[in-house]
Amino acid sequence: MAASESLRVGIVGAAGYTGAELLRLIHGHPRLELTYVAARERAGQKLDQAVPSTAGVAGLGDLVLEAFDAARAADLRARCEVLFLGLPHEASAGAAEALLAAGLVVVDLSAAFRMTEAQSYEPWYGHRHATTLAKQAVYGLPELHREELAGARLIATPGCHVTSALLPLAPLLRRGVAGALVEHDGIVIDTKTGVSGAGRSPSASKPYSETAEGTRPYKVAGTHRHTPEIEQELSRAAGVPVRVLLTPHLIPMTRGLLATCYARARTGTTVEACREAARSFYREGLVTILDEGQLPDTLFVRGSARAHVAYALDGRTGFVLAMCAIDNLARGASGQAIQALNVSMGWPDGIGLPQIGLFP
Amino acid sequence: MAASESLRVGIVGAAGYTGAELLRLIHGHPRLELTYVAARERAGQKLDQAVPSTAGVAGLGDLVLEAFDAARAADLRARCEVLFLGLPHEASAGAAEALLAAGLVVVDLSAAFRMTEAQSYEPWYGHRHATTLAKQAVYGLPELHREELAGARLIATPGCHVTSALLPLAPLLRRGVAGALVEHDGIVIDTKTGVSGAGRSPSASKPYSETAEGTRPYKVAGTHRHTPEIEQELSRAAGVPVRVLLTPHLIPMTRGLLATCYARARTGTTVEACREAARSFYREGLVTILDEGQLPDTLFVRGSARAHVAYALDGRTGFVLAMCAIDNLARGASGQAIQALNVSMGWPDGIGLPQIGLFP
Amino acid sequence: MAASESLRVGIVGAAGYTGAELLRLIHGHPRLELTYVAARERAGQKLDQAVPSTAGVAGLGDLVLEAFDAARAADLRARCEVLFLGLPHEASAGAAEALLAAGLVVVDLSAAFRMTEAQSYEPWYGHRHATTLAKQAVYGLPELHREELAGARLIATPGCHVTSALLPLAPLLRRGVAGALVEHDGIVIDTKTGVSGAGRSPSASKPYSETAEGTRPYKVAGTHRHTPEIEQELSRAAGVPVRVLLTPHLIPMTRGLLATCYARARTGTTVEACREAARSFYREGLVTILDEGQLPDTLFVRGSARAHVAYALDGRTGFVLAMCAIDNLARGASGQAIQALNVSMGWPDGIGLPQIGLFP
Amino acid sequence: MAASESLRVGIVGAAGYTGAELLRLIHGHPRLELTYVAARERAGQKLDQAVPSTAGVAGLGDLVLEAFDAARAADLRARCEVLFLGLPHEASAGAAEALLAAGLVVVDLSAAFRMTEAQSYEPWYGHRHATTLAKQAVYGLPELHREELAGARLIATPGCHVTSALLPLAPLLRRGVAGALVEHDGIVIDTKTGVSGAGRSPSASKPYSETAEGTRPYKVAGTHRHTPEIEQELSRAAGVPVRVLLTPHLIPMTRGLLATCYARARTGTTVEACREAARSFYREGLVTILDEGQLPDTLFVRGSARAHVAYALDGRTGFVLAMCAIDNLARGASGQAIQALNVSMGWPDGIGLPQIGLFP
Repeated sequence: MAASESLRVGIVGAAGYTGAELLRLIHGHPRLELTYVAARERAGQKLDQAVPSTAGVAGLGDLVLEAFDAARAADLRARCEVLFLGLPHEASAGAAEALLAAGLVVVDLSAAFRMTEAQSYEPWYGHRHATTLAKQAVYGLPELHREELAGARLIATPGCHVTSALLPLAPLLRRGVAGALVEHDGIVIDTKTGVSGAGRSPSASKPYSETAEGTRPYKVAGTHRHTPEIEQELSRAAGVPVRVLLTPHLIPMTRGLLATCYARARTGTTVEACREAARSFYREGLVTILDEGQLPDTLFVRGSARAHVAYALDGRTGFVLAMCAIDNLARGASGQAIQALNVSMGWPDGIGLPQIGLFP
Repeated sequence: MAASESLRVGIVGAAGYTGAELLRLIHGHPRLELTYVAARERAGQKLDQAVPSTAGVAGLGDLVLEAFDAARAADLRARCEVLFLGLPHEASAGAAEALLAAGLVVVDLSAAFRMTEAQSYEPWYGHRHATTLAKQAVYGLPELHREELAGARLIATPGCHVTSALLPLAPLLRRGVAGALVEHDGIVIDTKTGVSGAGRSPSASKPYSETAEGTRPYKVAGTHRHTPEIEQELSRAAGVPVRVLLTPHLIPMTRGLLATCYARARTGTTVEACREAARSFYREGLVTILDEGQLPDTLFVRGSARAHVAYALDGRTGFVLAMCAIDNLARGASGQAIQALNVSMGWPDGIGLPQIGLFP
Repeated sequence: MAASESLRVGIVGAAGYTGAELLRLIHGHPRLELTYVAARERAGQKLDQAVPSTAGVAGLGDLVLEAFDAARAADLRARCEVLFLGLPHEASAGAAEALLAAGLVVVDLSAAFRMTEAQSYEPWYGHRHATTLAKQAVYGLPELHREELAGARLIATPGCHVTSALLPLAPLLRRGVAGALVEHDGIVIDTKTGVSGAGRSPSASKPYSETAEGTRPYKVAGTHRHTPEIEQELSRAAGVPVRVLLTPHLIPMTRGLLATCYARARTGTTVEACREAARSFYREGLVTILDEGQLPDTLFVRGSARAHVAYALDGRTGFVLAMCAIDNLARGASGQAIQALNVSMGWPDGIGLPQIGLFP
Repeated sequence: MAASESLRVGIVGAAGYTGAELLRLIHGHPRLELTYVAARERAGQKLDQAVPSTAGVAGLGDLVLEAFDAARAADLRARCEVLFLGLPHEASAGAAEALLAAGLVVVDLSAAFRMTEAQSYEPWYGHRHATTLAKQAVYGLPELHREELAGARLIATPGCHVTSALLPLAPLLRRGVAGALVEHDGIVIDTKTGVSGAGRSPSASKPYSETAEGTRPYKVAGTHRHTPEIEQELSRAAGVPVRVLLTPHLIPMTRGLLATCYARARTGTTVEACREAARSFYREGLVTILDEGQLPDTLFVRGSARAHVAYALDGRTGFVLAMCAIDNLARGASGQAIQALNVSMGWPDGIGLPQIGLFP
């Protein structure tokens, strides 16, 4: 590839888990060049102190983490064309405006721009919604928003629970009330997530001794922030309001997110029809629809940007099971951010992204 | 306790996971004395070769595993009063008759005697149901079958998925169609189980490298054998037929079973009513109803015979969440077998059983 | 047991990992009655909030954690006879004097009283050594200090790395320079420890995502505080100065400590002689010397107060391998504290202590 | 890269752990094209059945595993230029001759060709050594055998324990008896390995329930087969016979190998001199010498082909600690095989190899 085709990119929050995964993925991407890394608490450290997996890697381990300052957006623009922005939700809303004004493309990893409506955001996040900017943002799930992503300047990377629920459910609901394969209400989404999703900060991270051998629900009864985001995107896909109950569970593993979704089948729905709808829906993108007899397993997507989706139908009770396994970092956050950038640039979805996970 | 009050017990299948847990629990039980251990493939080995955790424990590590032979039931009767029987389902059915005839009390750990009806058993297990014996057996969940257990000669220990589903759901359904707190159909049971539940045999056990970092569903769409057992027992409790969809998931942990059950709330049902119903239901036994704000976690029952149960209600979608965490061995199999024996003897449920788990 | 034979005990630091293990062990101990629990940051909480494994356990979950105040030692004395003291090293030194003066027996879990000499303590811990009290304290490793423990009023519970190194090495060194089986210098101790040893405080505990799949040395080249403690105790056992190199490693597991010790064999030493020396040394106590062909495994001591010890000899290089597996909580800290108390009371070492671990 | 520069490669043993890692690495390699996959027990299966992480990956998941037959070497040669040979040791010796004769380059993953002398092989492997072929083979550790690898036709990929010991020790010993930094005898190598090293076969793999929470030595007292291989290669590097004691330990993790090596420092040796010797030794290749204050951790090399090496010196006892962390698959087996092929082709060591691991 000619040098002119390569993009210079920076990462704000490079010492966190999402940032470290971006480091790995960008390092393997043939068209991205990393020119700037920033972190809050570890500013001033060499990258290999903050993220020891970079030690000795030419052009990476010796980078120094800088303190990010949105007021110096013009300087940043001179150093890179794209910024992956991993800030707290409220800080992201503040910073993005200046960055966009300076001509940077912003791939935001927070929730700041995911919701289009303030009333779906403010009660869950407890601060003002950046509605104007949010309306300009493109929701960064390429399989659902491919056209809008072309040339996007502000990309809102989806939540990881949301991704794991949308990918298997959207194809079943997309034809609206009349043509959907499942009922659009009473959908139960039971997710099982590895603990890296909570991030690296000491307050968020769970100690090993209280994580291993422990499986537990949290934020039950619809109190998880990803609920309105799932409903927004499923409703968009369905064309009618969709209502879900999300119950996340914390699982003793580092990476991985499995969603088991229960929806009532409409009359005549078969499991083949579900699989066919998904195959047709995902002709492009990084989603594998598993064959009959195969079931998703977070083990098989670890380190990969591909999602594995499968369906089953229980004739006795009339439920469709829509299941999906992703790596919450390699796909759910960092990988998807790069996939969305790829698509926004007109590149293939998977360029520079690992599509075959570590096994074992 | 006077010597005359103690029971001599034996274990068939002492080298398996359920058997090893029985060894641990019986060793700590003040009224049980272990006098006989048998195993199939490891017959002839010293116990501390087969189960190295017994090495050096007086009266335990030096026992020799014998080959079990039901034809010598009378000899066995001379050595113990009670036999914990951990055989394959079909073998159990064959052996129990001879053992009972010789005057032994049999606590069976297989599925052979759990189902009262052949049509709920044969399609799932693929061999003839021992219907006559099964009708004499008492289902060994003391919290649901306390009266029948008194003096029982043949106890059918419940399946572990079943226990985790029955304990939180039974109190909500018990008053029948008219008085139940939730609807009796369309119940979704999403279980997350540690891998020790599959047992120690090489064919059943999962290699570490393909278990760690992997969460996956299995036997989906109502194909798990515990489905009819759950329906039998919930229907008994409810007084009307109950239908459920069970979706088990394998989790990267050794012990533990968490059930997240979704049932549609009846009009007027509150979460306090659910909690109150369960508190009242479990005045006796080894079930803790967690307070508001507490959620079950397999970490907190590891090594313990107590079950932790909690409830939540999602007003938006109308679902009651009924959740339960157990240790699949310390409660789900071995612990429950001893609890049932305790109750059958007129002893307190928890005698000799650990009620506070290892933390961490 | 008559009520008069039972001891009332309290725990300071009941919400930490060592404290939680004490809760479990005391609850199963037939001669100890828990009457007082204290914690620093969680003072005021119900015990089942701080340690949810106690939820619903009669007489335990509803206890309220108090704020410990050594100045009120007399009040404490009215409530219990023995106090397990889990305070920071420096705080322990301060508190113990008042508690002893009030007539309490103190089983101290810190390092404050383990070292008899200030010069072996102060450089490592950075504050003044309580030399006077330390000289009255008995080092709480019953297998090495059985006689001194009789009637002890102040017991200094050993460090967990120390225990895992002393148990296999002491029998090889005990006869002094002339009769020892191995050379007394150049001993390499390579320990592998689960992460619960660092305790529950957020600053000490390691996040799951950075622990799983990671094995790493720490405090290398003799910089770990347990080095002088090991040398003190081995020198006592040997009767001559012993010098060791301790290299601890952090392993992705919650509990367990394995020590692999390398010592140069003296001429004529055989592995049988090592095993025989250990068997003879450990006629009393809670140490199992494994048979030929068996090797220690932390899996087989998890939850148990027994230590597993094994020996091997490499003829080619002349090294004796002395290996030991313990549970760092059930034996290394909490279990050993109770064992020492048992011995100080004239009770059998193992009363109330689990001697067969959880398998699996 | 022009098509003419790309190599067509095949994998024998593609369904095993080493093979699956080769699939991942080859898929990301810009100059290798996978044209043939074979497996023994899974022959006939689609690759995504045997290795589900390949599902949906274009050109990979739909490949069919073939049965390997060395007699058809000429056919194979028409389909690929290079064969990665993952057969049992004895089978490899038999097959390689035919493959080489047909003009294939063989990168062998077994031990068949690692030892140059029959007497270092036959007692450990129990069958005849293929001495003639072995003398033609190049030992595939590029950092030690760079020149010999140029144009090699038969490459013997090193054992993983061996790699982890050679990389930190070779620079300290290379100057021979006169100039070495450490003594060449009495070297203790204490390795800690993840369980994937034993392979995928049911007989070799350890069940999760008996691996998690367990750390244990195995093949102690110099009985591990990698002992003569380490001695051969260290002796080559040192120019004098080197003797070591290897004690491997099994750690509850899937990937990763940490070697902690203890060697007696020669007079005047400093830790800086050790680090400097290694930096100079590893000017080329994929080895990072960690800075002072950094210690190796398998977590930070997971999925990466880089090795992390560090040194420490204990002045009190005179030991040098030489430590090394690798991923036993991404570096120890599969990654190193590709690195050696890269070097044999005159390509940079790291082309197509991930050099930054997954964190977390």
